[in-house]
Amino acid sequence: MRWSALWAFTSRAMPSEADVASHQWLVRAGFVERVGAGLYASLPLMSRVEARLEALVHAEMRAVGAQEVRLPMLQPAALWAASGRWDAYRAEGLMFSLADRAGRALTLAPTHEEAVAFLARGLRREADLPKVVYQVGRKFRDELRPRGGLLRAREFTMKDAYSVHADEVSLAGTFEAMSGAYARLLGALGVPWRAVEADSGSIGGAVSREFMVLSDIGEDTVLTAPDGVAVNVERAVSLPDAAPGVGARVDAWTVTFADGAVVGVRVRVRADHAVNGVKLARVVAGLSGQAVVDAREGIAAVQFEVTDGACPGVGVGAVADVRVARAGERTAHAPQQRWVAARGIEVGHAFQLGARYTEALGARFVGADGSSRAPLMGCYGIGVSRLAQAVAEVTCDGWGLNWPAVIAPFGVVVTVTNSADAAQREAGERVYGALVAAGVDALLDDRAERAGVKLRDAEMIGVPLRVTVGRDLAAGNVELFTRRSRSCEVFHVDAVVGAVQRSL
Amino acid sequence: MRWSALWAFTSRAMPSEADVASHQWLVRAGFVERVGAGLYASLPLMSRVEARLEALVHAEMRAVGAQEVRLPMLQPAALWAASGRWDAYRAEGLMFSLADRAGRALTLAPTHEEAVAFLARGLRREADLPKVVYQVGRKFRDELRPRGGLLRAREFTMKDAYSVHADEVSLAGTFEAMSGAYARLLGALGVPWRAVEADSGSIGGAVSREFMVLSDIGEDTVLTAPDGVAVNVERAVSLPDAAPGVGARVDAWTVTFADGAVVGVRVRVRADHAVNGVKLARVVAGLSGQAVVDAREGIAAVQFEVTDGACPGVGVGAVADVRVARAGERTAHAPQQRWVAARGIEVGHAFQLGARYTEALGARFVGADGSSRAPLMGCYGIGVSRLAQAVAEVTCDGWGLNWPAVIAPFGVVVTVTNSADAAQREAGERVYGALVAAGVDALLDDRAERAGVKLRDAEMIGVPLRVTVGRDLAAGNVELFTRRSRSCEVFHVDAVVGAVQRSL
Repeated sequence: MRWSALWAFTSRAMPSEADVASHQWLVRAGFVERVGAGLYASLPLMSRVEARLEALVHAEMRAVGAQEVRLPMLQPAALWAASGRWDAYRAEGLMFSLADRAGRALTLAPTHEEAVAFLARGLRREADLPKVVYQVGRKFRDELRPRGGLLRAREFTMKDAYSVHADEVSLAGTFEAMSGAYARLLGALGVPWRAVEADSGSIGGAVSREFMVLSDIGEDTVLTAPDGVAVNVERAVSLPDAAPGVGARVDAWTVTFADGAVVGVRVRVRADHAVNGVKLARVVAGLSGQAVVDAREGIAAVQFEVTDGACPGVGVGAVADVRVARAGERTAHAPQQRWVAARGIEVGHAFQLGARYTEALGARFVGADGSSRAPLMGCYGIGVSRLAQAVAEVTCDGWGLNWPAVIAPFGVVVTVTNSADAAQREAGERVYGALVAAGVDALLDDRAERAGVKLRDAEMIGVPLRVTVGRDLAAGNVELFTRRSRSCEVFHVDAVVGAVQRSL
Repeated sequence: MRWSALWAFTSRAMPSEADVASHQWLVRAGFVERVGAGLYASLPLMSRVEARLEALVHAEMRAVGAQEVRLPMLQPAALWAASGRWDAYRAEGLMFSLADRAGRALTLAPTHEEAVAFLARGLRREADLPKVVYQVGRKFRDELRPRGGLLRAREFTMKDAYSVHADEVSLAGTFEAMSGAYARLLGALGVPWRAVEADSGSIGGAVSREFMVLSDIGEDTVLTAPDGVAVNVERAVSLPDAAPGVGARVDAWTVTFADGAVVGVRVRVRADHAVNGVKLARVVAGLSGQAVVDAREGIAAVQFEVTDGACPGVGVGAVADVRVARAGERTAHAPQQRWVAARGIEVGHAFQLGARYTEALGARFVGADGSSRAPLMGCYGIGVSRLAQAVAEVTCDGWGLNWPAVIAPFGVVVTVTNSADAAQREAGERVYGALVAAGVDALLDDRAERAGVKLRDAEMIGVPLRVTVGRDLAAGNVELFTRRSRSCEVFHVDAVVGAVQRSL
């Protein structure tokens, strides 16, 4: 492609709305443009990155036997009322909803468990299971404070996959296969990442795993152990060292649930420990049936005594782990290790859902033993546009974007430093033509700009290689510049195509 | 792929909501499933068809130099207020709109002229033009009566392209290049189609061209001439034969515009002619400035006298062509020919928009002569999911779907008629393995179903070829069944893979 034909304009101005480096560079390098609060247009350079990333995602989904589907984004409220999520998600405020011309309520579905469970009514026999489907498409979230460009936008691209199973063993197998696909994808991108275990299953029973790109701008804190185990701090369990002489204190907490229910809780905790609100809410949610028994004046009161270590079972007046685990403390799963803290951008999530949605939507199958059961489901998401920007964030530097070759918008840019020089122009065209003929996705910078602008722009858009056709052409030579190392090698103009092919 | 793993279940029951053959077969053959009024899930077989069709669309767009973008579906109302379409589209009732958590109005954009004109503010110099961009994605229309499955759904897949130009010559060139791309696409699908010219430009000035798949269930009537010219009946001009002794009559019409304005019109017409409401509305719209001068009691009255032939210019009391052209009448552009009627499904539309949107959104460029001008725009749509079903409609028969190889969900299905027969099973696996190794997209019907069910299902899903492994295997032979012709050839089991490759 010729840059003169490309809809891509770089800017030296710092965009006022951009607060993180990747967002600033994506705007300045002409990859994205803001159309409204949390609403971005991907211009051709960004669309190329996203299309290449999506191709990797499709390949990994096919590799685990997932079949592509296209589920409606617009869904009747009744589908969501059946699972109980219509009211819960509306109360949370993140779901967009609307009414059609007849006044019927619709949602812009933020996720598709209900739709898949509805379709799973067609899976009637054990032989019809398991099935794994996925789609890549837009999702919408009415964020309170959209920020970071594509990191927390109101419209974004997701890959969402769903599996349907006859039993837990089958579900666990697909959960691990999908985790393997995510690991290969993140490995191929060459970014630092961790699979982060969610709670152990003692509370709530659901198994989930988050996939984090490690970055200082991440909104999540992850605790990692030397053996590779990584846990979101919201769920981490640690063994604090003994603190002789330290007393206890009682904290008063109020837990508010998505359905509007409010529960008052008194928590007795070691005086130097802090209470983790997320853990506490999960424990209280598990207790809600009992808690209501104690309700006084509309507020249920539950008293906890917090101990170190795993939860031995919860009840009114129960003992549970609700303390904040801290870096430096011993890990509960292997006490000889200590947690190390890191920040992460959540780019993927895998979840074993059980039969909640299939039961709610009336999906049942006849087992090999003749019994009728609701199948189990798993769901597996990747924030594709968020992942693209997360890659930009952890690879960009003071000169601009710096894409890994596997998702770069072009493999190489051929920069003719002086377009007024006929010999340079001709050599640039020749190298560009040879690269295209060799199957390399090349960009020819044929713009009538100054050399400094063109060299800077090539770095800013972050293409892995640049062939610079400049004054050395008089001696038959051109430069091959590697963006990642910012190093140069000189090649004869006839040898540079081979060098590019070897470098990609 | 093995059918036992595929999420695809056929049904003998006629779906109650389906009123056209293609829709019935798509539901019965397990391609689509209804999730709500006008809202369909594409199951894996349909997703394969759509993905292959989209790949053809992407290739044609790249061939004309269009660059992929991804524009937000969710757009602030302010963008649409700037072009004047917020109120007009809301009044029409086809656009979904919603409010975010702060009460700000948003649209689920039915089209993206405003967004492209907004982005075109970045094209500042004549050297930056022309530019052509496109996207493939979901669109939404709040249809009064969704029907025909994907033919008129409330959520569907569109390819929408937009071009930005310095002058009319450049715009016309891209308009023709895009038309050529559409012609190649429809030609590759092997369906009957016509490019249908819109009005001549004498009224309104805008040039547009519709692309119709010819089908008896089409909602549009097209008049075609032997020289290949085709015109939508709403805009066709014909020369009626003389009718000596036939008098005139006066019809009273009321034209209501999208903005709520109402205009009363009296039309004098030859007694055996009918008035075309669409033509009349366009003439009145062109007159509205003058019509208001004559307003009485809030209703503007304009009197027409209708004549045969082209419009010689309109005014209050004007003469204009507002008559319904009929099949059998002489074509206005070549009076030795006569119109022939056909029905069409509109699958594409190309439009020369002029500067309306760029002027409204404040996009301007500096011309080579130093002047500042608003660039011109074109827009070019293909209803991708509608086109997929239109292909199904014109190819299906009494046995089911009947896909052209170029978008079929699989190239061939290998049917093992008796899965309990080890020799048949083994031969089926061997042929399937050889087909996959040869790069053929094959489906192995390994289900434990009766032979009749499997043979019927293979026909119903409309895969172009079927290798039938049956009783003839004892003699070393299998059958190659061609879906389009419903004819069979016998091959030795070792020769059938080559025969499949030659047939695809």
